[in-house]
Amino acid sequence: MREIFESELRQIGDSLVEMSRLVESAITRAGTALLDGEHQLAQDVIASDHEIDRIESELDERCVHVLAQQAPVATDLRVVITALRISASLERMGDLARHVAEVARGRYPALAVPPSARDTFVTMNDAAALVARRTTELLSTRDVALAAEIERGDDELDHLHQATFAATLDPEWTGTVQETIDVTLLGRYYERFGDHGVGVARRITFLVTGDFVGERSEV
Amino acid sequence: MREIFESELRQIGDSLVEMSRLVESAITRAGTALLDGEHQLAQDVIASDHEIDRIESELDERCVHVLAQQAPVATDLRVVITALRISASLERMGDLARHVAEVARGRYPALAVPPSARDTFVTMNDAAALVARRTTELLSTRDVALAAEIERGDDELDHLHQATFAATLDPEWTGTVQETIDVTLLGRYYERFGDHGVGVARRITFLVTGDFVGERSEV
Repeated sequence: MREIFESELRQIGDSLVEMSRLVESAITRAGTALLDGEHQLAQDVIASDHEIDRIESELDERCVHVLAQQAPVATDLRVVITALRISASLERMGDLARHVAEVARGRYPALAVPPSARDTFVTMNDAAALVARRTTELLSTRDVALAAEIERGDDELDHLHQATFAATLDPEWTGTVQETIDVTLLGRYYERFGDHGVGVARRITFLVTGDFVGERSEV
Repeated sequence: MREIFESELRQIGDSLVEMSRLVESAITRAGTALLDGEHQLAQDVIASDHEIDRIESELDERCVHVLAQQAPVATDLRVVITALRISASLERMGDLARHVAEVARGRYPALAVPPSARDTFVTMNDAAALVARRTTELLSTRDVALAAEIERGDDELDHLHQATFAATLDPEWTGTVQETIDVTLLGRYYERFGDHGVGVARRITFLVTGDFVGERSEV
């Protein structure tokens, strides 16, 4: 039984890594689509979100199956429940990457982000891609030192999110209403993306160390 | 064993109803705070979100405890897993109500929503409150006919969300940049609130009827 359980857990872990890799690819490509106005790339990101959803469904079914067949307790049980929660977070991160791509597609052939806000979103997308990459690594290696990097990436995203408000509220802001709306929503998408990354990081840290740093409050 | 399990399930069910009642109260009061510029009411909603989070934590622990002690299978197992997911959705609905209250507080003593968009948000808040109320009733009664009303409420929220974009993008829109930002974010909060309500409704429907109408795609 134990061997079957370990094998199931490995497959669950592999699926989480796979989801996280796809999320990393999605947010990176969505950012390029957004900032360079690449219509086909935006389409690709939007289409590929189904794959993330598919893996989530399979993974969740596998978790339920393991709970039914193996009736794990203590840490084993928490590992499975945590996997369910992480898959939900990764699925949302995929949705948010898709939303970024949808904004890019919606404005094509124009660029959604006006020149004055471009640098902020270049940095935001880099920070989000870093959060996703470190999340993949954390899921692969369980090296909880990576969690601190994810938290820093999220802090940067929060800071940049505030910067988007400062930019649009500045008397010098000359963006159209559409640009104000897009910058507002894009900022929110990236901010939420970071929150979910931190949520995943804290859950993994909790599993590895037993140290629960409060996974609630908006993550 | 069965009696203990049934008793635990009842307590889990009661906690979900309690969370849903608090969410209903939060969104209703947040809407009043927003539309009438009531600072103290906004504060109350923000402060009371902790109570929703607290119940969620307790409920989640209870679910893990039941899984460990009772090792449920088949439908019983799905009921517990579904309870975990519903509590996560209700917790997010509480966050979204809090976000509405935070916008109200942030603009006080001014009103966040300009007169031209007021009617839209009055209707949005009514629709969101209805979604919350029907969610509470659905959780209490398992009367899946209520799910259709929740779906309709969500459709209305989606429609009104689009109306907020149409309003701000209209050449007649005279709102400030701050008002454009607030209307954009508030529209998004209400839209997400409806999505989560539908997510809860579909999960309950699935449990009651076994009919899985696709709980994915953004809910």
